[in-house]
Amino acid sequence: MTYADRWLLPDGVEDILPEKAERIESLRRRLIDLYRHWGYELVIPPLIEYTESLLIGLGRDIDLMTFKVTDQLTGRTMGIRADISPQAARIDAHSLKRRGPNRLCYAGHVLYTKPKSPLGTRSPIQAGVELYGEASIHADIEVISLLLASLEECGLQQLNIDLGHVEVYRLLAAEAGLDRAQEQDFFDLLQSKATADINAWVDRNVESSELAAMLKALPTLAGSRSILAEARVRLAQAPATVLAALDTLEAIADVLEVRFPQARLYFDLSELRGYNYHTGVVFAAFAPGYGAAIANGGRYDHVGEVFGNARSATGFNVDITAIDGLVKTTSQKDGAIFAPATDDGAQWTVVNRLRGEGEIVVCGFEGQSVEDVNADCDRQLVFEAGEYRVRSL
Amino acid sequence: MTYADRWLLPDGVEDILPEKAERIESLRRRLIDLYRHWGYELVIPPLIEYTESLLIGLGRDIDLMTFKVTDQLTGRTMGIRADISPQAARIDAHSLKRRGPNRLCYAGHVLYTKPKSPLGTRSPIQAGVELYGEASIHADIEVISLLLASLEECGLQQLNIDLGHVEVYRLLAAEAGLDRAQEQDFFDLLQSKATADINAWVDRNVESSELAAMLKALPTLAGSRSILAEARVRLAQAPATVLAALDTLEAIADVLEVRFPQARLYFDLSELRGYNYHTGVVFAAFAPGYGAAIANGGRYDHVGEVFGNARSATGFNVDITAIDGLVKTTSQKDGAIFAPATDDGAQWTVVNRLRGEGEIVVCGFEGQSVEDVNADCDRQLVFEAGEYRVRSL
Repeated sequence: MTYADRWLLPDGVEDILPEKAERIESLRRRLIDLYRHWGYELVIPPLIEYTESLLIGLGRDIDLMTFKVTDQLTGRTMGIRADISPQAARIDAHSLKRRGPNRLCYAGHVLYTKPKSPLGTRSPIQAGVELYGEASIHADIEVISLLLASLEECGLQQLNIDLGHVEVYRLLAAEAGLDRAQEQDFFDLLQSKATADINAWVDRNVESSELAAMLKALPTLAGSRSILAEARVRLAQAPATVLAALDTLEAIADVLEVRFPQARLYFDLSELRGYNYHTGVVFAAFAPGYGAAIANGGRYDHVGEVFGNARSATGFNVDITAIDGLVKTTSQKDGAIFAPATDDGAQWTVVNRLRGEGEIVVCGFEGQSVEDVNADCDRQLVFEAGEYRVRSL
Repeated sequence: MTYADRWLLPDGVEDILPEKAERIESLRRRLIDLYRHWGYELVIPPLIEYTESLLIGLGRDIDLMTFKVTDQLTGRTMGIRADISPQAARIDAHSLKRRGPNRLCYAGHVLYTKPKSPLGTRSPIQAGVELYGEASIHADIEVISLLLASLEECGLQQLNIDLGHVEVYRLLAAEAGLDRAQEQDFFDLLQSKATADINAWVDRNVESSELAAMLKALPTLAGSRSILAEARVRLAQAPATVLAALDTLEAIADVLEVRFPQARLYFDLSELRGYNYHTGVVFAAFAPGYGAAIANGGRYDHVGEVFGNARSATGFNVDITAIDGLVKTTSQKDGAIFAPATDDGAQWTVVNRLRGEGEIVVCGFEGQSVEDVNADCDRQLVFEAGEYRVRSL
């Protein structure tokens, strides 16, 4: 490797330079403050832990996405976190051991072995919340409301939320007597949205014509709120639990339409992101101009089980870096004050006072004028009539 | 691994739970804001990059401290950063390519393969600044002043700064004709402060009695400012460059004594932390009750060379986690407001307004009272006489 390319960063790994870094920091603070005002307490889990606690049955994807290293103190395998929610679940289940609802939030880097999309990052900065210990629909409503409030806080103009419920497919698959392999096969087909293949597969594998019709209907049940009514018709013969899942989605929509009338709700009964670990309502946020979801969430009850403390859980995480790209504003930069080099110790007191008042003061070095500093100085400190004054440039 | 120990974290890896996390976040924000007011711009370098850009001749220690993983996209070796300063140097030298002084700051996690001390962390949170492109002593004075201001900002009562200058030993070793191996051997001995061994080694390896006396004097030249005067006597026959290094330390002390009269300055001419890459004044901050340095810094000119852009550089980093342990205050927790579960949609508007005003409002779920929530609620939202009011509990 020569000097010339020593600075090359790996694909999907990037520096965040001053102007953008300032914006990311501002988004990060605003989200943490918002979560705080909703009663969510900040936790800072470590970047690394044993894979046994990091990869707690959340599926093979997350395992492949996680960098592994050997602990030189024990020889055991550790993972660099690709997701913060299992860490929050561990903290809820083991470290805090609280009874009743527990609200946690976090913000930090995660790392992926490969980008999730060809031009995606391997090192996104995520913020997120988790609400443990409350199984009712009101917990789902709280976290989805908080996601919408997060997007508003970040300045996103258009709020698009996809809502689904993994139990609809899970219960239909069980009712149709699909075994685990079949359930996975059909799951993969559903994700591909290939209607002809889906129909052919159902004809081959499902005997009951009623259930076959319902499974075939799933990929078509996607759209605005009216599809929930359509689902009631198409899935009328489904077990009561499937209809209850539809009730849940209706009830959530009722509240969200009042709270966030400007939000666009989209329902998709074959949207099964995180099917391996989700257990109820799932949701994602999208924005025009960004191909992937900018936030993902949903219910994942039982997550604390591996830590010996099963707890209801729902939450989401937001990709701060992605949001910055969408709301990028011409940053309202505060001007700075240039303080020329001097031997006068009294200048230090003045400079310090100005900084304490919230000003940015950049000190020049000998022989330098305001043109030599890398800062947007719009004022200068001058010594006039026996005192230091701030003068416009 | 059983359920019972699945939550175990590796040694030196810890969760930061709510109360402490709130304090760490507050320290982090205060330091970034302080640096901003001094004209230091925030950068957010990635957690991972190729070892070629991460391990740029900063010594074998940092190489051993750095976790390595294979980039699945290229097969090349990447390192998880154990230090952010090489990343800032890369950004200064390559990405920003600014002329004149450039001030950068950062805050984030780093990761070590092994703790630096038996009970130390492997995942500290560091904040730091780097000042590039200014070779004069005024740059050293600015960053040391900013370190002292950082410690004050964090609420540390007692400011202890160790100051040294790596050129004193380097120039004496060169004058004594020590080869690279000898220079390293004696360096190791100096760190051990074993006087008898040091004297015996000098007698064996240094012919000139004048230089032998000066090398033997080095470990004794440690203490308050008076040792600088003593050094002038003991090192009177040293090359002029050594005496110039002493002048530099005197000049820095002159300014610091005026700016920070309460700080305790300690000088140590055999203190050679980071000798491999430092090129001038080096410094560290200590606090009673904490065995290791809470901040380290110094001049390391030439660091940009490997990126094709040699730049003067000085800076420091502060261990935020260590500082939190030292200034831990009984956190002035804001009380929260409990909002009982209700079917009334109008409550949402009131709750949202209170949150917007900076209040923490925790919503109860059905069947729960204020005792059931994990928050320090000192008030409750009640519906009285046709409107929502906040009542003390």
